[in-house]
Amino acid sequence: MRLAFMIAATDASVGGVLAFGDRGTGKSTAVRALAALLPKIKVVSGCPYNCAPEKHAKLCGSCNGGAKPKTEMRSAPVVDLPLGATEDRVVGALNLERALAAGEKHFEPGLLARANRGFLYIDEVNLLEDHLVDLLLDVAASGVNLVEREGLSLSHPARFVLIGSGNPEEGELRPQMLDRFGLALEVRTPQDIPTRMEVIRRRDAYDRDPEAFHKHWAGAEKKLRTKITHARERVIDVEVPEAALERATRLCLTLGSDGLRGELTLIRAARAYAALEDVKVVGDDELKRVAPMVLSHRLRRNPLDDSGSATRVERAVQEVFAK
Amino acid sequence: MRLAFMIAATDASVGGVLAFGDRGTGKSTAVRALAALLPKIKVVSGCPYNCAPEKHAKLCGSCNGGAKPKTEMRSAPVVDLPLGATEDRVVGALNLERALAAGEKHFEPGLLARANRGFLYIDEVNLLEDHLVDLLLDVAASGVNLVEREGLSLSHPARFVLIGSGNPEEGELRPQMLDRFGLALEVRTPQDIPTRMEVIRRRDAYDRDPEAFHKHWAGAEKKLRTKITHARERVIDVEVPEAALERATRLCLTLGSDGLRGELTLIRAARAYAALEDVKVVGDDELKRVAPMVLSHRLRRNPLDDSGSATRVERAVQEVFAK
Amino acid sequence: MRLAFMIAATDASVGGVLAFGDRGTGKSTAVRALAALLPKIKVVSGCPYNCAPEKHAKLCGSCNGGAKPKTEMRSAPVVDLPLGATEDRVVGALNLERALAAGEKHFEPGLLARANRGFLYIDEVNLLEDHLVDLLLDVAASGVNLVEREGLSLSHPARFVLIGSGNPEEGELRPQMLDRFGLALEVRTPQDIPTRMEVIRRRDAYDRDPEAFHKHWAGAEKKLRTKITHARERVIDVEVPEAALERATRLCLTLGSDGLRGELTLIRAARAYAALEDVKVVGDDELKRVAPMVLSHRLRRNPLDDSGSATRVERAVQEVFAK
Amino acid sequence: MRLAFMIAATDASVGGVLAFGDRGTGKSTAVRALAALLPKIKVVSGCPYNCAPEKHAKLCGSCNGGAKPKTEMRSAPVVDLPLGATEDRVVGALNLERALAAGEKHFEPGLLARANRGFLYIDEVNLLEDHLVDLLLDVAASGVNLVEREGLSLSHPARFVLIGSGNPEEGELRPQMLDRFGLALEVRTPQDIPTRMEVIRRRDAYDRDPEAFHKHWAGAEKKLRTKITHARERVIDVEVPEAALERATRLCLTLGSDGLRGELTLIRAARAYAALEDVKVVGDDELKRVAPMVLSHRLRRNPLDDSGSATRVERAVQEVFAK
Amino acid sequence: MRLAFMIAATDASVGGVLAFGDRGTGKSTAVRALAALLPKIKVVSGCPYNCAPEKHAKLCGSCNGGAKPKTEMRSAPVVDLPLGATEDRVVGALNLERALAAGEKHFEPGLLARANRGFLYIDEVNLLEDHLVDLLLDVAASGVNLVEREGLSLSHPARFVLIGSGNPEEGELRPQMLDRFGLALEVRTPQDIPTRMEVIRRRDAYDRDPEAFHKHWAGAEKKLRTKITHARERVIDVEVPEAALERATRLCLTLGSDGLRGELTLIRAARAYAALEDVKVVGDDELKRVAPMVLSHRLRRNPLDDSGSATRVERAVQEVFAK
Amino acid sequence: MRLAFMIAATDASVGGVLAFGDRGTGKSTAVRALAALLPKIKVVSGCPYNCAPEKHAKLCGSCNGGAKPKTEMRSAPVVDLPLGATEDRVVGALNLERALAAGEKHFEPGLLARANRGFLYIDEVNLLEDHLVDLLLDVAASGVNLVEREGLSLSHPARFVLIGSGNPEEGELRPQMLDRFGLALEVRTPQDIPTRMEVIRRRDAYDRDPEAFHKHWAGAEKKLRTKITHARERVIDVEVPEAALERATRLCLTLGSDGLRGELTLIRAARAYAALEDVKVVGDDELKRVAPMVLSHRLRRNPLDDSGSATRVERAVQEVFAK
Repeated sequence: MRLAFMIAATDASVGGVLAFGDRGTGKSTAVRALAALLPKIKVVSGCPYNCAPEKHAKLCGSCNGGAKPKTEMRSAPVVDLPLGATEDRVVGALNLERALAAGEKHFEPGLLARANRGFLYIDEVNLLEDHLVDLLLDVAASGVNLVEREGLSLSHPARFVLIGSGNPEEGELRPQMLDRFGLALEVRTPQDIPTRMEVIRRRDAYDRDPEAFHKHWAGAEKKLRTKITHARERVIDVEVPEAALERATRLCLTLGSDGLRGELTLIRAARAYAALEDVKVVGDDELKRVAPMVLSHRLRRNPLDDSGSATRVERAVQEVFAK
Repeated sequence: MRLAFMIAATDASVGGVLAFGDRGTGKSTAVRALAALLPKIKVVSGCPYNCAPEKHAKLCGSCNGGAKPKTEMRSAPVVDLPLGATEDRVVGALNLERALAAGEKHFEPGLLARANRGFLYIDEVNLLEDHLVDLLLDVAASGVNLVEREGLSLSHPARFVLIGSGNPEEGELRPQMLDRFGLALEVRTPQDIPTRMEVIRRRDAYDRDPEAFHKHWAGAEKKLRTKITHARERVIDVEVPEAALERATRLCLTLGSDGLRGELTLIRAARAYAALEDVKVVGDDELKRVAPMVLSHRLRRNPLDDSGSATRVERAVQEVFAK
Repeated sequence: MRLAFMIAATDASVGGVLAFGDRGTGKSTAVRALAALLPKIKVVSGCPYNCAPEKHAKLCGSCNGGAKPKTEMRSAPVVDLPLGATEDRVVGALNLERALAAGEKHFEPGLLARANRGFLYIDEVNLLEDHLVDLLLDVAASGVNLVEREGLSLSHPARFVLIGSGNPEEGELRPQMLDRFGLALEVRTPQDIPTRMEVIRRRDAYDRDPEAFHKHWAGAEKKLRTKITHARERVIDVEVPEAALERATRLCLTLGSDGLRGELTLIRAARAYAALEDVKVVGDDELKRVAPMVLSHRLRRNPLDDSGSATRVERAVQEVFAK
Repeated sequence: MRLAFMIAATDASVGGVLAFGDRGTGKSTAVRALAALLPKIKVVSGCPYNCAPEKHAKLCGSCNGGAKPKTEMRSAPVVDLPLGATEDRVVGALNLERALAAGEKHFEPGLLARANRGFLYIDEVNLLEDHLVDLLLDVAASGVNLVEREGLSLSHPARFVLIGSGNPEEGELRPQMLDRFGLALEVRTPQDIPTRMEVIRRRDAYDRDPEAFHKHWAGAEKKLRTKITHARERVIDVEVPEAALERATRLCLTLGSDGLRGELTLIRAARAYAALEDVKVVGDDELKRVAPMVLSHRLRRNPLDDSGSATRVERAVQEVFAK
Repeated sequence: MRLAFMIAATDASVGGVLAFGDRGTGKSTAVRALAALLPKIKVVSGCPYNCAPEKHAKLCGSCNGGAKPKTEMRSAPVVDLPLGATEDRVVGALNLERALAAGEKHFEPGLLARANRGFLYIDEVNLLEDHLVDLLLDVAASGVNLVEREGLSLSHPARFVLIGSGNPEEGELRPQMLDRFGLALEVRTPQDIPTRMEVIRRRDAYDRDPEAFHKHWAGAEKKLRTKITHARERVIDVEVPEAALERATRLCLTLGSDGLRGELTLIRAARAYAALEDVKVVGDDELKRVAPMVLSHRLRRNPLDDSGSATRVERAVQEVFAK
Repeated sequence: MRLAFMIAATDASVGGVLAFGDRGTGKSTAVRALAALLPKIKVVSGCPYNCAPEKHAKLCGSCNGGAKPKTEMRSAPVVDLPLGATEDRVVGALNLERALAAGEKHFEPGLLARANRGFLYIDEVNLLEDHLVDLLLDVAASGVNLVEREGLSLSHPARFVLIGSGNPEEGELRPQMLDRFGLALEVRTPQDIPTRMEVIRRRDAYDRDPEAFHKHWAGAEKKLRTKITHARERVIDVEVPEAALERATRLCLTLGSDGLRGELTLIRAARAYAALEDVKVVGDDELKRVAPMVLSHRLRRNPLDDSGSATRVERAVQEVFAK
């Protein structure tokens, strides 16, 4: 799970991460902890949309014009979308007070604005209303929040990584939703006693004294954060040779995944993984490493093959990479 | 897909374009890119409805009276209808602020006004609420947005080309909707490795550096834009001889498409295609070229013939044009 | 279709006209064109309800009192009820601005007021919400719009001819609705090539240059308009002899139509037709001419007789009039 | 139908009248015409609830206190409940203007207030929303409109006769509704040609010149009105002997109608009928005359007896009165 | 029915009374008449919640503090909950006028406040929305109306006896609702002619001259009212010996009623009955008298025993009390 | 039931308590009585969120800054969530008065704020709307109420024990809800006469004179309150040896409960139980004592084993602890 998260943190265009599995496996806790790994970001001072100061960035309306804006460092946003959040709060809405008082339209940014350049976390994503999930995936894909409602008509940058978690027993995600998450993984309850004991021990330690717990793990966290920062710089230079592109395509064809989103994500995830590992050229190893999390949720149900999707991906990998 | 788009851009009365197909085939990306091909338009200065200055044009209320209005050149509008747009924002609505402040009714134009003389794009058109699709097709057909709600009663020009895309697996369009789109095409995932690799390569190039990508393709785009501009001028003079009209009618009869919308669109699309190709008289070639995109979505399901609609159109073309 | 329209224009008490048929047969276009045939009407100057100045007319509240009001000539209203019209706009509603500003209740007339003494056209009448259709038929039948809502309680004259068009494949009208339309006709796609070609030619001519098209047909239109004007004057004097009444009744009994609306409409439609043809006494010819459009939508489904309703009406006509 | 109406007009406690039958039989026209038969009523001047000046009458809040109020004669109200009437308009509601302007609660009486001491007519009662029908029957039964909503808490007299008409094919009334109408009758299309011709002739005469029509029938109407006035005075003195009460009870037992509403209505209807006919003591003739309209809608469906309800009532009458 | 009513009037903690049966048996009339039997109550002057002046009583917010408040005698409230009452009016709500005018929150008591220390009557309780019935039973059980909505957070005493009537054919009460009514009885149409005649005679007498009717029965009513007043004083001193408690428990066990609400109500109803009959110690007679109305609606459906619930209770009584 | 309650009161992180069973077994009464056992808490003076003054506590916005705040002792809150509470009142909402008057946003805390550091009781938890239960469990788990709606965006501490009661016959809780309650117990009607008699006797005593009843039990209550206070201090020092952790894990594996919430709760509940019993080290006895209430509601339905969940837990305990 940490690897998927770090890949998405390295290159947001990989798409969101979906963690599905049994209840009580600490998915939410894990996601919240991973937030500590995100490097800080440089933003235009005071901008409610976390606009990056670089030239070429799509700026929001408020800091659109200026020559060379002042900047500040901020923690990368990790926004929690609570159950029961209204569409208004997600998308943003008219500031009613100012509308009533001063008679002027003023847009009050929502969670999508706050999440720009960071992460947006949805626990129990399968319980969220379909139209909200649609909307979130749409914005996450385009990087722009386009608002056309209640007398408002504006857009602002909203480039974030969507992290979803959920328990499939409480309601499946529709296949077209699944397909739009870049990476997906299944989290299962460990079945051996020592692992379970270790998890319980850590969880109990954390709950009893969170500060001591954080101090204990601070070193490890810092190392990972630095790794992401470096990977972000390196990823632009990682090469994807024709051979890798060809293997990625062949793998998707073999598995019969719809559309081209499979191979596109495979290439991007492998590139991000290479950058994390400080590898200059994407090779078989990188592709093989990320293939399961990229592809296992994009398979069509095969009525003649009742092996799990993980097994099917693995078999296809062996077949394609054997050549 | 580009051809359908250029035909609709040449003669808006052809009706909208519908692109249906697997997810992940880049339909949305393609539509958004095609927007760059639209020539600029000449409008009455300041008119929120993009009114054309020519005599005889149906003018909106705001620039209705004047003798010879000032004009300006604008980019042809390409309006994106986001998921979750309210009917108010689409149709236009009472400006509440002015109603409350000054006690006067002031109409605030919606997306239909903004789209006048341009394109209106709906991604996932099959997920849009039926009443909105009905409304959009109605307005697109009549070229007029007639508003009768909440104390408002007005109309303004709204002549645009509707572009819809969608994935039929996520919900079919009702047949009567299908029939009202002028042109339709199916977009499938390519099944050969080189094509897939090429698509991935371009998409990845675009995502990594959009500006460089645009610069690379600017020349080609300009050529197509000029082609449309010329075709728009020429289309009025393209002749449709009796023979062509007769063949169009016979083709529709053979295929048993309901009503006369089939042949009407066939004639118009062939004429626009001729104008694009600088052909003066519509002949068999033009009809044959456009027949599949005009007719394949207008066929009734034939229980005795389970070949695809494309095959059925092709067979009918051969039969009719052999004579 | 034109005949049904002219009969309804001659005597509004015949009831509405319903044009049902395949999509793409130009029903809407036809209805809109027929609007040009309506003669002008004389109204009380400034009256928003098109009140007639004659003594005995039910006047609206605003011009109720006066002795001999000023009058003016207006085009007969042809009101288009757009998809998505709200009940408020149809029925009329409280003028909110004046209510808020001046604290007085002021009724703002709706589409029913505007349509008084003219036509109200509903495209896709079968897609309209049932309660709106109910309401429209109710008002059309009584000639009065009675408003009891939101603190309003008033009535005004609303005597209009309801014109509906629709495609039965997109949703049937309920039988009780069907029965309340005075006249009904089925519009089918022509199946011979010359007719289809002619329709396409005209439609294309109209779309390319509406003005030239109108000029070309102006003479014919004027002739029909005059015919309606004369028929309106003559209809009051057309005689319906006992024999005609008896044949009308026998025809309905033979066909087993429910209630007496069948023969009542038959008599009225035949009388209006006679007035149009300048015939003084309703005879067999007039009854036979109008019987199909009056009766074919009032038949009960007969499980032992699967011939179409048109054939059944024809057979009954032959049987009854043979005697 | 006229008899049922006159009985209800003589003694409102008989309960409402329900006219059910084929469409197009002129039920609505008949009800509206019968309204002319109602005698005028004496009311407290200016009272919006038509309060009667007699001592002991339940007075409304507005004329509750006074010693001997001024009175005036008014036409008995015949209130038409249009399709689409809101519950607010039916029950009455807070006057919003005064609430906003003067900050005081002022009740604005609704249709129930206006209908006090008259008739409330609902066309297509079977299409009315169930909760409104419930409410109307409740108020009609208790004679009081008790309002407990939106900050209002008041009651006013609302003693009216509910007249419903409808077509059972468009939706049955629930049995518990049926049972609460005092009298019910089925209106069928006449099947003989002379009757049908006569109906058509009258209807056509009415539609062409309502005034002449009314003048023609004015004498007959006046006679009936006087008959009702006298019957109202006499009804209090009509005697119901033990024998009549016993036969009424036995008849209901024989037919197995639920509850005691059957015999109660039978007695009352027979008494009113006697008063109309100037008979002093209710006898077999009166009971037999009103039994069908009182009882035929109160029968339980009998699976072993598929004869119509009219036949079953007739049989029971013969059986009981033979003794 | 009168006995159940008097028991509930003697000790409100017995729980509500439910009268179920055929329509037209005068259930509503009976309940409304029984209201006259309630003795007057002593309340804090001006208190909108009918607070009792005694020490220890749960006082409402408005008369909470004071030392020794002024008191007044009031008729015990018998509140009618009309069909269509909104939850706001039942529970009480924010007084909007004062909120808007003075900007302060003021609670406007609802029907639950008005019913404190009296009766709340719901006709057709089975037609009431489930959430309202839930709410009413909840408040009736706890004696407190706890309001947590729309910015309000308060509670006031609401100790009343819930009287419900209804016709099971129009919709059953859910078993968990049934169980929460203290006493229940079934009202059937009498099947012998003399009784039916007597009922009709009385009902007709009442409807024709309510005042005379009331005068005629005033003596009997007064006697019953006095009986209740005395029973209320005596009930605190009625003794329930171990043997009676044991028999009550054994009876419930035999019948297999869920939970302990059965025996608790049995004890209380027997005690109230003893107080009414001026018996000092609850014995077999008292238990046997009240057992049917306490237990017959608490039985589980027994698939092997299709005798009515009344019979089953009787059999159990014989079995238990034989010992 | 009391034990479960005391364990939850000792360590809130155990999670809520769910009491399910037959109706009429006094579950609600029991819960309300147990409230008296909660020790008082020390809070920042005037804080509407009951903030604890200790360093490290997550403080609310209002008392966030200060150095060393004044404190006061308060009764631990036991908040009753009534049927019909709106989401606004539960979560908290914008104070509308201040918003309208002063034009400033002011958050009005809801029930979740009031319940901080205490208990939140929901009677008939299975009848509560799913989204409210979701929300409550979410907040209870995280200890933070995160509000994102209607222009509000804030969070405050909300660490409470959720107590639910309900009758499974009126609607099951979804398994994912069940799993999130820490402890669960089934309450059944006692089947022996002496116990039932004793319960009735106490209940009746309480209802007749609550004060005397409370005085009678005050000593016992005080002893339990002191026990909880001591246990809260000791719990931090109770040791959980590896062997206990291992047995807890093995027990959960044997029973096949999903996730790790089972063993985590088992450890915590055993630790709290040890603290209550003044045991320093968690051993087999503690685990065995709490296992049924921790685990019986987390079992998957086993189609091959139809013994009750209690039996299955017991069998697993014997199996695991025999080793």
